[in-house]
Amino acid sequence: MNNCLSFSLADTCSFLKEHDNYIILTHASPDGDTLGSAFALSLALSSLGKNAWVLCPDQIPSKFNYFAKQCGTEPKGNATVISVDVADLKLLGKLMNVYADKIELAIDHHISNSHFAKRLYLDSSAAAACECVYWMIIELGVSITKTMADALFTGIATDTGCFKYSNTTPKTHIIASKLMECGIDAAAINKLMFDTKSRARMEIERMALESAQFYFNDKCCVVCATLNMQQSSGCSEADLEGLSVLSNCVEGVLIGVTMIETEKNTFKISLRAYSPYNASAICAKLGGGGHIAAAGCKITGELPQAKEQILSFIKQHMEEVDAGSDSCK
Amino acid sequence: MNNCLSFSLADTCSFLKEHDNYIILTHASPDGDTLGSAFALSLALSSLGKNAWVLCPDQIPSKFNYFAKQCGTEPKGNATVISVDVADLKLLGKLMNVYADKIELAIDHHISNSHFAKRLYLDSSAAAACECVYWMIIELGVSITKTMADALFTGIATDTGCFKYSNTTPKTHIIASKLMECGIDAAAINKLMFDTKSRARMEIERMALESAQFYFNDKCCVVCATLNMQQSSGCSEADLEGLSVLSNCVEGVLIGVTMIETEKNTFKISLRAYSPYNASAICAKLGGGGHIAAAGCKITGELPQAKEQILSFIKQHMEEVDAGSDSCK
Repeated sequence: MNNCLSFSLADTCSFLKEHDNYIILTHASPDGDTLGSAFALSLALSSLGKNAWVLCPDQIPSKFNYFAKQCGTEPKGNATVISVDVADLKLLGKLMNVYADKIELAIDHHISNSHFAKRLYLDSSAAAACECVYWMIIELGVSITKTMADALFTGIATDTGCFKYSNTTPKTHIIASKLMECGIDAAAINKLMFDTKSRARMEIERMALESAQFYFNDKCCVVCATLNMQQSSGCSEADLEGLSVLSNCVEGVLIGVTMIETEKNTFKISLRAYSPYNASAICAKLGGGGHIAAAGCKITGELPQAKEQILSFIKQHMEEVDAGSDSCK
Repeated sequence: MNNCLSFSLADTCSFLKEHDNYIILTHASPDGDTLGSAFALSLALSSLGKNAWVLCPDQIPSKFNYFAKQCGTEPKGNATVISVDVADLKLLGKLMNVYADKIELAIDHHISNSHFAKRLYLDSSAAAACECVYWMIIELGVSITKTMADALFTGIATDTGCFKYSNTTPKTHIIASKLMECGIDAAAINKLMFDTKSRARMEIERMALESAQFYFNDKCCVVCATLNMQQSSGCSEADLEGLSVLSNCVEGVLIGVTMIETEKNTFKISLRAYSPYNASAICAKLGGGGHIAAAGCKITGELPQAKEQILSFIKQHMEEVDAGSDSCK
């Protein structure tokens, strides 16, 4: 949309002060960051005497119950609609059709934001949308309560893999420090977010590790989670989240492949690559896409054929890249 | 030792300025914190024109090569001996006998420090000895170079599980922020420290997950790594480090038990407990010890009998605690 206004922090805070009744939209399959942003913002607006209602396209996982509590009432008439951590309208899931042309303000940190809202506050240097909301709360002059801090810390910790990934900046740590001073139990939040897995998850991890196979001088590792494995472990879709870490944390592996069978003979491929290889280049050839370090695509067919297909594209890519670097010597 | 002087930060820095030739001792089985402290301190002393030589009782794992580089020369005559991150003389391993009565200054963060040195700088609120060394470098007025920051960040990240554990404080995050501003690649360090495992580690994890058994309404999980499993996975002692996390990250588990067979029919037991249970109380009955949340002991016997023994003590403890909380109602 061409008529999307770019908003500064000051613009955004003025806008937030101007209205009284808000609906805050999260993205579908809600994670810690979209929920943390939405609930922290709703609490901040509420402390300014506004009414704010969080609307989530899907059910909120119960593990977020410690902060994901409504503080307003559901608006009956007109309300100002804000989205948080939503990069594109499609990510609104079942709320997309209702709210597509009604979003007055989007607050986001994804550089890929598709400018779908009337106004956009975008800080792509922020590790999490919760970082953006933190600065808004400070700028609005609202004191950060423990529950706001719980929400914001959760979003920042989950989007950075507990301060592990390259999106973590010096500012991220400063904010974490400030939030810890609000009396949160950061270690308990981290334990819940990172070190608590279901029995089914434990079982599917074991099976995926068992399926691990290595190729191309052990530079490539492929792990699978077939429908059979998913059924016998009893795992849900949520239990499969982040499973791809298993394929790319082995010493010497430069391309990690995770094949998750989503329906019979259809595989969702997650590919992680390290320099000099490019995950996105490989997945693009199979109709997928993503970033250099992490990309995805879909392959149909029986497992052995599907695996052979992705491996042949990986082989070709590795040969091209290796030849390219040879010629540079 | 009664004549161990308690040193403030200022005392410590005066002492460091007074001498010219240092030996810095790390503990045996060196980890990121003892090595990070030693090499950062040696670089800081070197930048003040001193000579400092790091002495480690065991071989330094190659994954620390990016900062673990000597900057001084090995002292031939008398040198002032400092220990870092060493809580007790026993932890000096093969260096204990040579240096037992020669340690002029111990820099530590373990509340259990046994006051073995002539002088002790102890900050038990510090998440890592590297936090102590960070403040010393600041107090000494030394500019933190990238290599110093690599060393200090590594120690802090490894001792806090990447800012995940309860020893992480607001100050820890502030220091992390400052170190990131020194140009380090924190994400690469974190990847190397936390997301890189050997093939053998991957295999022993799979086997340990396969061995998992649940007891007492699934509140207790036991995983094993027998000598057979260790041999067939090809894992080393280092590959077994931190394996105990597998037993206590499952939803609903309040007591996690890891049994590692160290020699035939001898099991090193690591016990992790969550409130209201007490790992230390259970291990004490088996001649071991530790903290409320994490403790250890040794059991000899065939695996089934060893397991039965630890389970019987756990059962007894759980019954006592559960009865105790009932009587409080």
